[in-house]
Amino acid sequence: MSVVRVGVIGAGNMGADHVNTLHRHVSGAVVTMVADIDEERAAAVAGALPGARATGDPYAVIADPEVDAVVVASHDTTHADLSVAAVRAAKPVLCEKPLAPTLSECVRVVREERRAGKELISLGFMRRFDPAYVELKESLAAGVCGAPLLLHCVSRGVASAPGATDEFSITGSAIHEFDTVPWLLDSPVTEVSWHAPRATTAVTGLRDPQLMLLRTADGALTTVEVFLNAGYGYDIRCEVAGERGTLALTNPARLVTDSARARSLGYPADWRPRFADAYRLELQAWIDAVATGSPAPLATAHDGLVAGAVAEAVIASMKNGGRTVTVQVPEV
Amino acid sequence: MSVVRVGVIGAGNMGADHVNTLHRHVSGAVVTMVADIDEERAAAVAGALPGARATGDPYAVIADPEVDAVVVASHDTTHADLSVAAVRAAKPVLCEKPLAPTLSECVRVVREERRAGKELISLGFMRRFDPAYVELKESLAAGVCGAPLLLHCVSRGVASAPGATDEFSITGSAIHEFDTVPWLLDSPVTEVSWHAPRATTAVTGLRDPQLMLLRTADGALTTVEVFLNAGYGYDIRCEVAGERGTLALTNPARLVTDSARARSLGYPADWRPRFADAYRLELQAWIDAVATGSPAPLATAHDGLVAGAVAEAVIASMKNGGRTVTVQVPEV
Amino acid sequence: MSVVRVGVIGAGNMGADHVNTLHRHVSGAVVTMVADIDEERAAAVAGALPGARATGDPYAVIADPEVDAVVVASHDTTHADLSVAAVRAAKPVLCEKPLAPTLSECVRVVREERRAGKELISLGFMRRFDPAYVELKESLAAGVCGAPLLLHCVSRGVASAPGATDEFSITGSAIHEFDTVPWLLDSPVTEVSWHAPRATTAVTGLRDPQLMLLRTADGALTTVEVFLNAGYGYDIRCEVAGERGTLALTNPARLVTDSARARSLGYPADWRPRFADAYRLELQAWIDAVATGSPAPLATAHDGLVAGAVAEAVIASMKNGGRTVTVQVPEV
Amino acid sequence: MSVVRVGVIGAGNMGADHVNTLHRHVSGAVVTMVADIDEERAAAVAGALPGARATGDPYAVIADPEVDAVVVASHDTTHADLSVAAVRAAKPVLCEKPLAPTLSECVRVVREERRAGKELISLGFMRRFDPAYVELKESLAAGVCGAPLLLHCVSRGVASAPGATDEFSITGSAIHEFDTVPWLLDSPVTEVSWHAPRATTAVTGLRDPQLMLLRTADGALTTVEVFLNAGYGYDIRCEVAGERGTLALTNPARLVTDSARARSLGYPADWRPRFADAYRLELQAWIDAVATGSPAPLATAHDGLVAGAVAEAVIASMKNGGRTVTVQVPEV
Repeated sequence: MSVVRVGVIGAGNMGADHVNTLHRHVSGAVVTMVADIDEERAAAVAGALPGARATGDPYAVIADPEVDAVVVASHDTTHADLSVAAVRAAKPVLCEKPLAPTLSECVRVVREERRAGKELISLGFMRRFDPAYVELKESLAAGVCGAPLLLHCVSRGVASAPGATDEFSITGSAIHEFDTVPWLLDSPVTEVSWHAPRATTAVTGLRDPQLMLLRTADGALTTVEVFLNAGYGYDIRCEVAGERGTLALTNPARLVTDSARARSLGYPADWRPRFADAYRLELQAWIDAVATGSPAPLATAHDGLVAGAVAEAVIASMKNGGRTVTVQVPEV
Repeated sequence: MSVVRVGVIGAGNMGADHVNTLHRHVSGAVVTMVADIDEERAAAVAGALPGARATGDPYAVIADPEVDAVVVASHDTTHADLSVAAVRAAKPVLCEKPLAPTLSECVRVVREERRAGKELISLGFMRRFDPAYVELKESLAAGVCGAPLLLHCVSRGVASAPGATDEFSITGSAIHEFDTVPWLLDSPVTEVSWHAPRATTAVTGLRDPQLMLLRTADGALTTVEVFLNAGYGYDIRCEVAGERGTLALTNPARLVTDSARARSLGYPADWRPRFADAYRLELQAWIDAVATGSPAPLATAHDGLVAGAVAEAVIASMKNGGRTVTVQVPEV
Repeated sequence: MSVVRVGVIGAGNMGADHVNTLHRHVSGAVVTMVADIDEERAAAVAGALPGARATGDPYAVIADPEVDAVVVASHDTTHADLSVAAVRAAKPVLCEKPLAPTLSECVRVVREERRAGKELISLGFMRRFDPAYVELKESLAAGVCGAPLLLHCVSRGVASAPGATDEFSITGSAIHEFDTVPWLLDSPVTEVSWHAPRATTAVTGLRDPQLMLLRTADGALTTVEVFLNAGYGYDIRCEVAGERGTLALTNPARLVTDSARARSLGYPADWRPRFADAYRLELQAWIDAVATGSPAPLATAHDGLVAGAVAEAVIASMKNGGRTVTVQVPEV
Repeated sequence: MSVVRVGVIGAGNMGADHVNTLHRHVSGAVVTMVADIDEERAAAVAGALPGARATGDPYAVIADPEVDAVVVASHDTTHADLSVAAVRAAKPVLCEKPLAPTLSECVRVVREERRAGKELISLGFMRRFDPAYVELKESLAAGVCGAPLLLHCVSRGVASAPGATDEFSITGSAIHEFDTVPWLLDSPVTEVSWHAPRATTAVTGLRDPQLMLLRTADGALTTVEVFLNAGYGYDIRCEVAGERGTLALTNPARLVTDSARARSLGYPADWRPRFADAYRLELQAWIDAVATGSPAPLATAHDGLVAGAVAEAVIASMKNGGRTVTVQVPEV
């Protein structure tokens, strides 16, 4: 297997994490180029790698002859244009979720990829590679809990990023569940509704937490809680109640501590420790596919479009007092 | 303190359990009479006690001079009439939940009690005495998790009783949450909606599981899952997510077993082991109040009416495709 | 059933707790008298009960015509004399553990009881009534984990009482395990050894923690950790590893809290919340037996002597550099 | 970084796992050769890799010009000779534990390495790379539980390998704790004793389970339970009780299942899922060191010798009725 030369666009938390994972933990990849609108940040990340170059121009990465494949981890609003550019350059691209913040942009990207005639875009729905979610999916398929009826998903973080909007909870956070739930159930989301209690006073002007109900074509019903400012830690839960029992993710803490009248398990401050394995395995699977020219086993651009259609329906419900909205997946 | 002579109406699972608890675990009470429409069942239960008499006539219990106070644990449809009869006989009565299966009957009972001029009816919302729920309420009040925003309640059983209806999940099971949630939050339920996935195939013709959303006046939002035929065990959960953290009930199993590739905690087959302490403490508190003539610290008939109003609103939502319904508590 | 009139000797933490439990939670008992060397303390405890008298003289309690049965919860060094006095007065007595701090005194008490010709002494090894230990014993007997091979017991507290000695960890704390382990296994302790790491610096001059190995006649081996100054909480553990699996007590906390980067279960500060049920059920069983004149299903004076013999062997090992010591149970 | 060409000796479970990990999950390594005394097994393992050759001769691997570094995962009795051969060939070698089944052989290997003048041997004490053990060590060092006083280690498996001996529980299983405990505490084991209950009847003629006590120079005391035929699953535990609290490994199961009256977490059947991360991270660290010519951050041959000295002391205790034995680490 030849080594895949990777260019990474975006050197923020996510991009820097991908660079480190590719360099330290993925077999068969070498990061040759790093771009960021903050060129110094790009230089700092590239500087830690032997032979990697930095640039302020993401398109230079896509065009570079020493870049075989591209990772897009820049701002959500840039995902669509950069993915399209990579497709036009005929280079495989792993685009972080979401494919785009709006459904119409998702459609545009998928159409461009269709036009190019080759599935070059992989989407970073990394939960599909998280060992716990994978085991959950396998156990469901094996019938451990019988046919799924109800799912309860919870996605909590410590604090929202500056400038977070009500829509971001949907397109930036719940979007993971919009992909994970149909992937787990092998059944698309057909109908949604949006609900919320009074907002936390931890931030002003943000509807947080939010609660969404998703119906899938198989008749199952899913509750999704997104709580960006839960304060206590980064905590991702998923329970499936089926006809014969339930399956749920555990808290993955490695240590238990007894002190000060309490037995406790730690929570991480953000997603990085929780999904380190998922990102590593996703990147490895992607590199393996790129190296051999085989289809990548990651989520596709169309999966991103489908999740985007669910997000659009949830936003419509939010703007209409929580009424039930049918998910419309555009034909492309 | 003089001994309180108790007559128990209903000798099914619930009634027999109350008789045993009063006899074995409650101080200051003696069961003197047991009634059941099945007189043999009444005789069997009474026969286990020194000096207790059996009857097929519940009104004979209420009228008996050797009965100071009455427990009503017969069929839900008899609760209203028997409670009213006890009130008219000026005897304290502990009526099992629900006060009545319909709101109009609840209103009638409360009106009769008002007319009698003395609060004689206590309602068996025993979760108010469960040590775990009590600790949860105290921790909430102490601000351990900050102001409550979201509650997730789950109520699962092994199998529904024969003849269970869609309404029973609401008036017979979720009714506990309709009392517990406003009691925990100290805020009434104002608005509800009803939702359900496709039903389990474990029984035919029953909408099971069901999911309800409750809004309380404080702005919190509660999800209530009722799943009568969950199959795996009797499992009651409650989690409160607040502004600074969460509080939740634990699984109360006393033993953990390692065997056959699994570490496991047991679930009981029904509510009796789970709420044995709650029933004991509730009955003790009731007997103590009866003995001293002080107001009983149990739920009141009006609490039962309020829960009945929530149930009626949820049923209305169920019959109207899940639309949001405002809770209307009748003036009495 | 007639009401049993109980006199309680000792109004410290343990005695006050027994008075409260008898008064509030036990059916068929009334506390008529409370003694303490600190007469004011006795008066304070008795004052909370209708009709109870206080005294500074424990023997006055035993002699009182309105006392049918006696609870001894005074200092360990008084247990033997007071139990003997109760026996001589032909009154049933529930003596807190240990029967006596030395084996020779235990022998004396048992001999006095034999001489009296009636088993009047019950010993407060309350773990035999703790629902978790009872379930453990039943599960062992049912063969859930196969034949027991290894037991791991841990007994940790927050802080040792003032004046605690190295021997107290054995005669006052590990004594529980010396009774519980043979009771669980239905097999006597035959051989012991004592070990310890360097002591905690939390207190000076005390060998704490300590580790003991117990062999039982069935061939099982038990480790007992006693750590009086563990600091973090009151924590009692017991795991049995058998030929087909294991059985262990769970942490009985009722709530789980998420806050400040941790998921936590609380520990109590002392034994009262942990063993409240055990004491209540033990006292109820004792009162029931006293009321009906049947043999009490509690540990006997001889059980206390046997545990005392184990304690003596462990102390001998401690004083002899940890060598293995055979347990010698004196013939009485 | 240039790619390190690795030859793997031993194509059993352990060797095949290393080959797969090196090939799939380690960056910068390529497996070029696989040896096994069963040449077909070697061929099967090598056949799954592009360009890897198979051989029945382990020394051919060591001598091969296309092998830069050697992994020894063959039978325990071959470790010493093969490690020495690698040292003589001036090739870095990662030898599975134990370094040798006897202390005298360990001494010989270390002397040969000293003679060669370069630390070429790394020892496969992979727990040093397990994220949970690493977090435990870091938390200890950070003082989370205060100064360590007692450690409780448990090492249980489903069934012993055919031909397992009483010594194997010590040299092949507890050897992990003989390395892990002093590594965690940063303090050597100075004194040991060996104990056992009656043996499980699951196998005949084997002292299983076994219990060992280890004293370290810091004054801490450790209990080590080894139970090869625990039956229920592969289960590794470690708890440290310190002056201010405790730290312990959690059960790393990713899913919790509710079914058939139980809530359960799975156990793996063997060590592979439990320590997959540890082996991957260990191999990556080794490959990184080999590629750059820096000292490997793995356990050294001398660490293997030290663990071997502890094992020899434990065996001496076993053969002398459990008496306490001082650990003697030979000067080399």
